[in-house]
Amino acid sequence: MALIVQKYGGTSVGSVERIKNVAQRVAKFKMLGHQIVVVVSAMSGETNRLIGLAKDIQSTPDPRELDVLVSTGEQVTIALLAMALKDLGLKAKSYTGSQVRIVTDDAYTKARIQHIDEANIRGDLEAGCVVVVAGFQGVDEAGNITTLGRGGSDTTGVALAAALKADECQIYTDVDGVYTTDPRVVPDARRLKTITFEEMLEMASQGSKVLQIRSVEFAGKYKVPLRVLSSFAEEGDGTLITFEEDQNMEKAIISGIAFNRDEAKITVLGVPDRPGIAYQILGPVADANIDVDMIIQNVGADGATDFTFTVHRNEYKKALEVLHAAQAHIGAREITGDDKIAKVAVVGVGMRSHVGIASDMFRALAEEGINIQMISTSEIKISVVVDEKYLELAVRVLHKAFNLDQVPA
Amino acid sequence: MALIVQKYGGTSVGSVERIKNVAQRVAKFKMLGHQIVVVVSAMSGETNRLIGLAKDIQSTPDPRELDVLVSTGEQVTIALLAMALKDLGLKAKSYTGSQVRIVTDDAYTKARIQHIDEANIRGDLEAGCVVVVAGFQGVDEAGNITTLGRGGSDTTGVALAAALKADECQIYTDVDGVYTTDPRVVPDARRLKTITFEEMLEMASQGSKVLQIRSVEFAGKYKVPLRVLSSFAEEGDGTLITFEEDQNMEKAIISGIAFNRDEAKITVLGVPDRPGIAYQILGPVADANIDVDMIIQNVGADGATDFTFTVHRNEYKKALEVLHAAQAHIGAREITGDDKIAKVAVVGVGMRSHVGIASDMFRALAEEGINIQMISTSEIKISVVVDEKYLELAVRVLHKAFNLDQVPA
Repeated sequence: MALIVQKYGGTSVGSVERIKNVAQRVAKFKMLGHQIVVVVSAMSGETNRLIGLAKDIQSTPDPRELDVLVSTGEQVTIALLAMALKDLGLKAKSYTGSQVRIVTDDAYTKARIQHIDEANIRGDLEAGCVVVVAGFQGVDEAGNITTLGRGGSDTTGVALAAALKADECQIYTDVDGVYTTDPRVVPDARRLKTITFEEMLEMASQGSKVLQIRSVEFAGKYKVPLRVLSSFAEEGDGTLITFEEDQNMEKAIISGIAFNRDEAKITVLGVPDRPGIAYQILGPVADANIDVDMIIQNVGADGATDFTFTVHRNEYKKALEVLHAAQAHIGAREITGDDKIAKVAVVGVGMRSHVGIASDMFRALAEEGINIQMISTSEIKISVVVDEKYLELAVRVLHKAFNLDQVPA
Repeated sequence: MALIVQKYGGTSVGSVERIKNVAQRVAKFKMLGHQIVVVVSAMSGETNRLIGLAKDIQSTPDPRELDVLVSTGEQVTIALLAMALKDLGLKAKSYTGSQVRIVTDDAYTKARIQHIDEANIRGDLEAGCVVVVAGFQGVDEAGNITTLGRGGSDTTGVALAAALKADECQIYTDVDGVYTTDPRVVPDARRLKTITFEEMLEMASQGSKVLQIRSVEFAGKYKVPLRVLSSFAEEGDGTLITFEEDQNMEKAIISGIAFNRDEAKITVLGVPDRPGIAYQILGPVADANIDVDMIIQNVGADGATDFTFTVHRNEYKKALEVLHAAQAHIGAREITGDDKIAKVAVVGVGMRSHVGIASDMFRALAEEGINIQMISTSEIKISVVVDEKYLELAVRVLHKAFNLDQVPA
């Protein structure tokens, strides 16, 4: 008998029919003798509907009240799922975030979980009850309703699994696992049976939209075994995200190809090569609340250097404006940019113990005539920026170059 | 400066535009220097939508989970109204029933308020905040969400007014007060400036659908001055429901004509005139959860008597079945009934000190050839049952006979 936390996203509970299907699936696990906690999101479309109402009232909705409003979405789902479970003859009980006491800080709309009172849930589980918990929401010490921000239901699932010391946290979604890359780009893309947390973090932040990055960090921190599964497929073990490299496991050097087409790059040319210059450039960008992804600075010549970074494409114009305003203060000769770029990365813990991955990558791209504009590396990832028009080609070439279409021997 | 509790029903907050209008109205009161608590219902249609979802899942939805589900309706409204108030530059804060701690028993879907922790609300009011509270809902001692049953938002408003010792509880609705009778039946019907609680109870239970009867009882018990107002009219003082007869106030003998067309009568003929017979007849009816309204038993002759009572028309068939099943046990000769009846009543505290009201009433009906089938009286009310086809005529005739179309001198 295991204690399993299952999380179902908005699409999985998007209609009465689908909620009944989730109940069937939960019942199957329950019949095997497991203790089950189910975490659910709002029915798909509901959160957007509620935010739409809020914006009709207030152009920038008050954050506290927005959380009161939006948290009703999951509350509807927990009630309906608990009813569906009872209709199958199971014992079931719903909990809002506030009823569990998923205690967060008071940063409305993006609160962070501080601790979870798991005693009541444990009591219900021991009494044979399926416990249904509203994802995405919590309560601060003063009793105000908070939400964890978009995708926060994954985080709720992982945090509950950690608090309950669950055997596994299963994230049900509309894909059946983590793939070597996006199957829409590479039809040969293969589902990974396992992936390490570090690889998953690199894959997720690079744009594999399977899991919310915070929930993966959380799972890594508390060593919660995390499994991504399809809520629509009848069969399949999904992808298990492990928190240590299994020495017995045959493992490919490279696990996957991540990519992101929503990037833009900005280059600040001819800035004085002096201490503090990076801060002078990126300070105003951060003050404008613009996230910076890759940052590259080359060694300078003649006391001047060039500085390049990437931002989300939606923030390209704003970032340019901010820098033009600061140009005189920075002492930059010129500011240029390009919003027709894309980022491609190879990810794998194997590259720690294998040399030559970078050169293999660069050769594969060169053979197709793809020019590399920027390079950035970490322990388990090599990212390059290329012209957007080469994105799909680059992903296919690299997928093939590292034999990702073949099951590891 | 007064402390005012205002309650707005589902129609009054039925759209974003209407919620903004409510905010404007609240702002006007706030600008006059009053402390304001606003109690709101779910947006019109929302509760039915949610119940529909529940019934798609479970034919008889689990009561605990139904309350979790349905309570989201008001939660949406409090958030939106608080946003609208903030958008007007006011300080505002929303509270769910559970956040206030409106503590109820655990009778899901029809819980009763036990006490209210009003300390936090009072603090917010003193800090200049408009407090927005979800009507219709509470929380039991164990932290489960409960609802007070349909129309329970009125009760929330009155209970909060009682707990806060408010100067007035204003119930905003789609009518602008309590009328001498339904203006759709008698165009001359006149809005009452005041009505006593006792009269209001008789009017409400007789079918004047202005206020939920429980909230009126509550207001009477805690001596909360209650005012019914229109949320759509710009002007007007509505109707004040007073808890004592104002001796200085010129008062008509009769305040209004109540009526109810949803009744059916059942007569049990030739039952033995012995102790316990009323219980033997009504016991099975009560066991079948059928509410009985008027009950009449005439003095018997030859050791037998006739027994007549009225029930809601929807339960007429069920009540007949129950009685036919019990007929042999009761020893009744025959059971007859009629579901084409209606009840008409004249209501007024003035009849306590005036004789002849009943005969005035019966004469007025007789002059129009309306046969009276049943009569029942209380201290401040005389009800008669007539053929349904005479209902409107009877109401008009009585309205005129008691000069209700004229403002009291």
